[in-house]
Amino acid sequence: MTNPPNRQIVLAVRPAALPRAEHFAMSKGTVPEPADGEVLARTLLLSIDPAMRGWVLESKNYVPAVPVGGVMRSFGVAEVVESRSNRYQVGDIVAGLTGWQEWCVIADADVHRRVDPTLAPISTSVGVLGLTGVTAYVGMVEIGKPTPGSTVVVSTAAGSVGSAAGQLAKIHGARTVGLTGSDEKVRMCLDEFGFDAAINYKTTPDLSAALADACPDGIDVYFDSVGGDMLDAVLEHITIGARIPLCGTISMVANNIPMGKRIERKLLVQRALIRGYLASDHFDRSEEIATTMSQWITSGQLRYREEVFPRFEDAPIALERMVAGENLGKSVVRVAYSDSERQ
Amino acid sequence: MTNPPNRQIVLAVRPAALPRAEHFAMSKGTVPEPADGEVLARTLLLSIDPAMRGWVLESKNYVPAVPVGGVMRSFGVAEVVESRSNRYQVGDIVAGLTGWQEWCVIADADVHRRVDPTLAPISTSVGVLGLTGVTAYVGMVEIGKPTPGSTVVVSTAAGSVGSAAGQLAKIHGARTVGLTGSDEKVRMCLDEFGFDAAINYKTTPDLSAALADACPDGIDVYFDSVGGDMLDAVLEHITIGARIPLCGTISMVANNIPMGKRIERKLLVQRALIRGYLASDHFDRSEEIATTMSQWITSGQLRYREEVFPRFEDAPIALERMVAGENLGKSVVRVAYSDSERQ
Repeated sequence: MTNPPNRQIVLAVRPAALPRAEHFAMSKGTVPEPADGEVLARTLLLSIDPAMRGWVLESKNYVPAVPVGGVMRSFGVAEVVESRSNRYQVGDIVAGLTGWQEWCVIADADVHRRVDPTLAPISTSVGVLGLTGVTAYVGMVEIGKPTPGSTVVVSTAAGSVGSAAGQLAKIHGARTVGLTGSDEKVRMCLDEFGFDAAINYKTTPDLSAALADACPDGIDVYFDSVGGDMLDAVLEHITIGARIPLCGTISMVANNIPMGKRIERKLLVQRALIRGYLASDHFDRSEEIATTMSQWITSGQLRYREEVFPRFEDAPIALERMVAGENLGKSVVRVAYSDSERQ
Repeated sequence: MTNPPNRQIVLAVRPAALPRAEHFAMSKGTVPEPADGEVLARTLLLSIDPAMRGWVLESKNYVPAVPVGGVMRSFGVAEVVESRSNRYQVGDIVAGLTGWQEWCVIADADVHRRVDPTLAPISTSVGVLGLTGVTAYVGMVEIGKPTPGSTVVVSTAAGSVGSAAGQLAKIHGARTVGLTGSDEKVRMCLDEFGFDAAINYKTTPDLSAALADACPDGIDVYFDSVGGDMLDAVLEHITIGARIPLCGTISMVANNIPMGKRIERKLLVQRALIRGYLASDHFDRSEEIATTMSQWITSGQLRYREEVFPRFEDAPIALERMVAGENLGKSVVRVAYSDSERQ
């Protein structure tokens, strides 16, 4: 094939704390050549994820930091245009680590799953049926184990992961209480995502008292993507045997861990469990989980919101908005359209 | 039957922090009458347990505080002398909550198990085959899940629970590292309980560095009965997917929780699990676990130490010594002998 330029967005300056658009720069690369067992693919959509906050920092994380000058790491979905793989053919749509670039080479082993565009819009493969879905499903269903009549509290409840987690708890018969940061998001929780109650933690004078009101029988499951003071407020109300899946710690940055009241005694007395997990450890189950969850999308029990940024160069501002909590729903950046979408 | 006096030891003064012998007083009660579904039993042995520290404090705990003037709560083993139960007969030896008294009434539902005196000495039923065994087994085998070749660190490793937990890990193929508070206990860990390494945390200048030396492949399981700074040192070295069963928090008292560096980020990055649990939630499994573990006692793979105080009135000093870490092995107080023991 001919060699069009490959626009890339690189990390220009390492942020001290939260990434902003100014930390990134447009760069021009070349379209890479796939080796044996790899495909060349055209990026269709980029996923803007909270994990990106950690990826751009220097401090120890679960994956190496993105180097200054390097293409920003990103999940995305792409269409195979050249294949030296036995598994994926030209025209296949694959989800994986595309990076912020228009063309990418992905090894077979790094493809998370093949996307079936007839099941749901392709954008869901980087949203509710992608990383978001795996995060919500593994945390809520497999660690949280909500039971009928139990009380489940969800942090960042209007966000893409939180809203899916809350609906999964509801599907399993639980009563759901969402924590979120604006009155608009409270309404989204109640009206769109079926939470039984929702609390604006930014305007509530006493979060612990608000939780006590909203959870008269205590909290059986807390889906935690925040940590910190919010976790402490929840811990005051957990029931015996409570489960706390922990998929994020957005209340703190990796290189500046705050102090807090020690939590061991509370975990012991309530025989509670906290388990950290990452969706990336469960990519081998992406297809199975997407299939399960797509049934609930079809049945109307699982709703989602997307905020699609229409141009590749919007990726840094999409990230900045998500970090600032200004997004409503899953942030996705459109880079190109597949043949099937164009038809 | 005639009514002999029933000597009891009561909580005379509520301790501000750690219980000492002076907080208790001898008292004289009457021998109680069993109601339907209850037995009257003669206390044979009392179990001195770390949980007693919490039972005598005012603050919220997993069971109500022992009231001032009330008989001290205690696990023990007793011989049935009068039965109004369909399940237990005169002569049966039962383990349960006897309290610090010579005679006790126990309801059927409160008997933890019937003790088979032919399996092992009766004292093991309040030791390695009792609460201790359930604590070690549930925590190490079922939450810790040690695998062959994995590295397991055990706190209070020369103690009754810790030494059993370490040997259970060893039986499951793990490499074991004990943390303990004296050079004598270090030797016990290595020579009696088969630990591959042992660290005197009181004399080690840098516990984290000592753990790094002793655990070159990181720590897969931490059996925690301590919490606090020791947990923080361990967390610096946990592997991905580490499991931390938490059965005690003896580094802190319930009414004075210290501050510490927040642990959520570490749990997330290492996808680690901390789970608080109490043996008392698993008493229904006492008999099954005792049977499993008695096989390893017979095979010589599971060794235990007991420190038997010979007189009922020694119970308060036995507790004080255990709280001060001066006991070597499980502390047991002899109150009376069963018929089978006298033969």
